[in-house]
Amino acid sequence: MTGSVETLRWNGQSIEMIDQRLLPHQLQYRSYNSAQGVADAIRTMVIRGAPAIGVAAAYGIALEAKRLAGSSPDTFIKQMESGFNVLGTSRPTAVNLFWALNRMRKILDNIIQLPQETIAEMLIAQAHSILKEDIEANRRMGIFGASLLRDGMRVLTHCNAGALATAGHGTALGVFRSAVESGKRISVFADETRPVLQGARLTAWEMVQESIPVTLITDNMSGHLMSQGEIDAIIVGTDRVAANGDVANKIGTYMVAVLAKRHSIPFYVACPLSTIDLNIPDGKAIPIEERPANEVKGFGELHWAPEGVSIRNPAFDVTPAELVTALITEEGIIDNKILISGKLTEFVEKYRK
Amino acid sequence: MTGSVETLRWNGQSIEMIDQRLLPHQLQYRSYNSAQGVADAIRTMVIRGAPAIGVAAAYGIALEAKRLAGSSPDTFIKQMESGFNVLGTSRPTAVNLFWALNRMRKILDNIIQLPQETIAEMLIAQAHSILKEDIEANRRMGIFGASLLRDGMRVLTHCNAGALATAGHGTALGVFRSAVESGKRISVFADETRPVLQGARLTAWEMVQESIPVTLITDNMSGHLMSQGEIDAIIVGTDRVAANGDVANKIGTYMVAVLAKRHSIPFYVACPLSTIDLNIPDGKAIPIEERPANEVKGFGELHWAPEGVSIRNPAFDVTPAELVTALITEEGIIDNKILISGKLTEFVEKYRK
Repeated sequence: MTGSVETLRWNGQSIEMIDQRLLPHQLQYRSYNSAQGVADAIRTMVIRGAPAIGVAAAYGIALEAKRLAGSSPDTFIKQMESGFNVLGTSRPTAVNLFWALNRMRKILDNIIQLPQETIAEMLIAQAHSILKEDIEANRRMGIFGASLLRDGMRVLTHCNAGALATAGHGTALGVFRSAVESGKRISVFADETRPVLQGARLTAWEMVQESIPVTLITDNMSGHLMSQGEIDAIIVGTDRVAANGDVANKIGTYMVAVLAKRHSIPFYVACPLSTIDLNIPDGKAIPIEERPANEVKGFGELHWAPEGVSIRNPAFDVTPAELVTALITEEGIIDNKILISGKLTEFVEKYRK
Repeated sequence: MTGSVETLRWNGQSIEMIDQRLLPHQLQYRSYNSAQGVADAIRTMVIRGAPAIGVAAAYGIALEAKRLAGSSPDTFIKQMESGFNVLGTSRPTAVNLFWALNRMRKILDNIIQLPQETIAEMLIAQAHSILKEDIEANRRMGIFGASLLRDGMRVLTHCNAGALATAGHGTALGVFRSAVESGKRISVFADETRPVLQGARLTAWEMVQESIPVTLITDNMSGHLMSQGEIDAIIVGTDRVAANGDVANKIGTYMVAVLAKRHSIPFYVACPLSTIDLNIPDGKAIPIEERPANEVKGFGELHWAPEGVSIRNPAFDVTPAELVTALITEEGIIDNKILISGKLTEFVEKYRK
């Protein structure tokens, strides 16, 4: 069942990614073979989702080395630096991007004296590892997360933390997949997630593909459903978790978390360790991307806002640790007590490679 | 300035209404001359907004009498009854609809022995009165409400409680208009209000028409802006207020109110007395309309949800009285203390005709 959605695939020469802007109407891959190409794909949201962005960036660096192999040493080093820069400025909030770039940079620094072809091969192998590790982490997260769900539960998610947001299986949706694989019947509410509609277009599509019952709602409906007792748990993904446990995720997550607290509904965040940023003390320090106004003025070619209106378009918000029932990681469940007691750093340093 | 938007206008023979489904791209009137026609206009949201629906329904009854004048007494009575039924089942949540129909029915019962032409004339005159009273109530509400706003305030509203939701001036947007008329500079945040986008298409358009600065956001952004200290007050309209002060309004209002409470931001509800339903003890008893699935699957001709997904589409939710800082009525401000002490009935009965 899992792996039916291959968000990124290596074709021997370049990295192919599903163009997620075309879903659910078209399933179409685009092929990339440079850092600039991958950076454009990230910026324009051909690919999105924190873990998927990290994997894509790793391939961007590897492909840049492959493209440059045979250059003069000066050109190689200068162009690789430029590749790191263009990828590092493609989107600001998801920390997995910087985590993956740092990992690639460390490898590169260690092997910079080797022939460029060998460097390229080793960086490609490293990107393959990052992709494989991401799927494995999601499967482990899925098993831990599934233990939190009971048979028959109705679970809300926001945005898309699915196979499409990762190398495969998904973080939040990975938990749903693992729960179903273990024989539990669950049903999913998907917030449509304006303005880019990742919930309506991607989460709903993934759940339909897996035959997991899914009900689509607009972003302003979840509070009402919670007040009516129609939601038993919430699981979302995250783009960056600060050292104090504050969680940055798709805009609107904070409102869902506040309503969940009011209605005593557990609010879980599925989060690989690569998404935890111990260098950021708290949520206030997480950079929040402001995206183009056009996204809010309508959708696609259709514009419904009148001329003359101003637009705000923050793409993420921060949910304070106090509202998070638990983080679900590939190394186990980090509950609220650990989060708010400041022991997240200890946990992460114990397990992180 | 006020009255530049004429939501409904009498042309001597029939009632014309702006087709609000076409805004902001086209400003086009449609003409109606029967109860069935007006009921269809309400059901399909050519016209929407609790007070506007009430005014429209009054004209629907008056026009039905005009259309039937000259019939046999039996036919007249039977068809008028059918007119009340078709209008009374057009939409369930806004109480102004039933308030206006009851008012028209009382008049009709008192004059049923008169010639049918006279009945029709008197019902048309009554509909004119309801329209005129609605604008007057909005202007008085505007003055009371404006006293709550300070110069420079940034005010959020949800859905459209504007001139387009009333006979003119508006309830929540009437407060903004009155504040600006009194020399205060305010700026407005408009929630786009999925699925029908009344905020993006109607509120933003009204504010642009009035040159009041307006910033459009998606429904999931207000919590983030509140957490950043960017919103000073919230004013919304309402479709029905229960005797205990619980407020039914457009889906998503409840989430905004919960976030406002968390951030100690005043949450005001602009509410003519005709919207208060003393027959309903509390919000749990207010019927919540579930609208067609198509509205959530996309917008207009554009569908973005995948095949096979289920849909929920509750059009309203209930905000408990505890979250309401004050009701703004045409007879003054009803603050939270009065609301939660159960003295709303006393206040309403004192002023209601």
